[in-house]
Amino acid sequence: MNPELLISTRTRKTPFSSRVAACGAKAYTVYNHMLLPAVFLSLEEDYWHLCEAVQVWDVSCQRQIEITGKDSQKLVQLMTPRDLSQAEYGQCFYAPLCDENGGMINDPIIIKHSEDHWWLSIADTDVMLWAMGLATGFILDVQVSEVEIWPLAVQGPKAEELIKRVFGEEIRKIRFFHSRKMNYGGNDFLVARSGWSKQGGFEIYVNDAELGVQLWDELFSKGVDLNVRAGCPNLIERVESGLLSFGGDMGYDNTPFECGLDQYVSLEADIESLSIDALRTRPVKTRLMGLVMEKQVKLKDLRLMNDGKVIGMITSNTWSPKHSVHLAFAKCDIGSIADVQDLHVNSSTGEVPAIITKLPFNFESLGL
Amino acid sequence: MNPELLISTRTRKTPFSSRVAACGAKAYTVYNHMLLPAVFLSLEEDYWHLCEAVQVWDVSCQRQIEITGKDSQKLVQLMTPRDLSQAEYGQCFYAPLCDENGGMINDPIIIKHSEDHWWLSIADTDVMLWAMGLATGFILDVQVSEVEIWPLAVQGPKAEELIKRVFGEEIRKIRFFHSRKMNYGGNDFLVARSGWSKQGGFEIYVNDAELGVQLWDELFSKGVDLNVRAGCPNLIERVESGLLSFGGDMGYDNTPFECGLDQYVSLEADIESLSIDALRTRPVKTRLMGLVMEKQVKLKDLRLMNDGKVIGMITSNTWSPKHSVHLAFAKCDIGSIADVQDLHVNSSTGEVPAIITKLPFNFESLGL
Repeated sequence: MNPELLISTRTRKTPFSSRVAACGAKAYTVYNHMLLPAVFLSLEEDYWHLCEAVQVWDVSCQRQIEITGKDSQKLVQLMTPRDLSQAEYGQCFYAPLCDENGGMINDPIIIKHSEDHWWLSIADTDVMLWAMGLATGFILDVQVSEVEIWPLAVQGPKAEELIKRVFGEEIRKIRFFHSRKMNYGGNDFLVARSGWSKQGGFEIYVNDAELGVQLWDELFSKGVDLNVRAGCPNLIERVESGLLSFGGDMGYDNTPFECGLDQYVSLEADIESLSIDALRTRPVKTRLMGLVMEKQVKLKDLRLMNDGKVIGMITSNTWSPKHSVHLAFAKCDIGSIADVQDLHVNSSTGEVPAIITKLPFNFESLGL
Repeated sequence: MNPELLISTRTRKTPFSSRVAACGAKAYTVYNHMLLPAVFLSLEEDYWHLCEAVQVWDVSCQRQIEITGKDSQKLVQLMTPRDLSQAEYGQCFYAPLCDENGGMINDPIIIKHSEDHWWLSIADTDVMLWAMGLATGFILDVQVSEVEIWPLAVQGPKAEELIKRVFGEEIRKIRFFHSRKMNYGGNDFLVARSGWSKQGGFEIYVNDAELGVQLWDELFSKGVDLNVRAGCPNLIERVESGLLSFGGDMGYDNTPFECGLDQYVSLEADIESLSIDALRTRPVKTRLMGLVMEKQVKLKDLRLMNDGKVIGMITSNTWSPKHSVHLAFAKCDIGSIADVQDLHVNSSTGEVPAIITKLPFNFESLGL
């Protein structure tokens, strides 16, 4: 049983909060000082529905940090070790942000509107403050602000059909991790093929609260036969899909390599990035790994044990109804991963054996 | 009825979380990515107990941003317009942090350990990221980190008696907003006479999780006759006392003057602070004011109306059991405050008249 959440003006509401409540949101979390629904019916019912139909998610908490001005590209590139020099307008870049020591600050989606206009669609840390500090210290010609954008995600196998009914056939042309400005009620909403699930779908960057609510209602009225429901990022789905949560599965102490984000670090590129030198030399101390357990586990604590020794900490875990196994992510001591003899987690009923594997999970090769 | 809070590793637990749950915490909020209990019995029962006895609060979420190194004092002074040049070791400074435009970033308690060792005991924004950005940009010789300190507050009229029983008579010598290192279990805990209530008390900066839990238990075992209970910052008490919450009652858009923090801005001092020039010239657009209503109000929305026009937004509100009035803070348009004719708030049963007053509330002059 979860405790209650005391809502205040500090835990900000969104333009969709009354709709979300009316749709029966049972539990929330707080993300970027804003309400994010976390459960509607139950984690498992929400999960099956997401995998089979279509859901509308109030992910307003994916705040947009807008960077404008002459030095915008310079500032954004300083913040990430991913090479953005070839970024096309409207392209979405998943990118780690890292400090001078290579430690991660956040893992946003970066969207380039133009050379001097960027958005960082951020995870749960105040990236704006870091960007402002850098801009002030380096005396950059930029403006940094959190803008009034409230993303709505439409996720699930029937998301494309639903989005098409509202925005027209043109949305089919939007490639994965690309975006397009689409007219809605006389306004331009940026619509991207993206979202924090692996069930397919879109994110709509709502820039007008009233029109946003109108859009919410239209998605529901046009999606009745698709069994559309309000939903939210789902723990089960995202663990099965290997999607990481900043602040939970990775944090300030980790480099992108420790989180398996190697492909988003452009070590070979000639870029001016704060972290690139550190990332070339800093030793990788831990690695985020997957764990598979045969039975459903109620964890007693988060330690991962090997032969009586702690070799890692569990960061997320869930029962997988699809694969009938218990899954977890664990931050593991890099030296201990190769030499695993007797791996187990502590459950409330005793020790439970676990298999360690790379992320994302490859259920086929695991025989699941 | 409050919704549920879904707890994850991202909404961090504290060394005291199991104790807090065992004491019956009903509701939480999330503050600096960490659990902060918000209700035990009920807001009103918790309130009366705080005003009459003594409570132990898990305020681990008041994270300590530690700044060390040769340029520490320089960096801290850059961040705040409050003159810290005369700061004594161990003194606690409530201070707004402001950006180049005079906009507030946070309102921490700043503690000077030595010239090159400072703590910022922060409200709910990632001050560490701003400090890191500034340090990087200005190439300052500092280390900035969030350290493993979990403050425990002991608040209420019987707090001094309880703290004395644990730490000895010496604690009586600690003046308001001063601190002292006190031995506990062979360890040094910083103990300050401070806390987020006006009922008196102390904050203990626990730097050892295990000893902290031992201290928690000792406070309870030695406080039985004082009717000690677990508690938390209480909405009713803090509104009556005029204590502001960053992110709710004030934010990035406000200067300290707009929040009534005039006394914490050293406009006349010769200090190197990022915001001091802007604060000398930036117009004050809004002002945080107090509202008093005769009856208990269930707000329909947060608008404060004068003669049919919106002149402000309510940021916090509560029924005051002690004064039998409904109290609120409201961010008001500065031009409209003087000329108030027909002030009211929108309640779920219609318009309710309100009286506007300065903060903190002066109940005597209000005839309450």
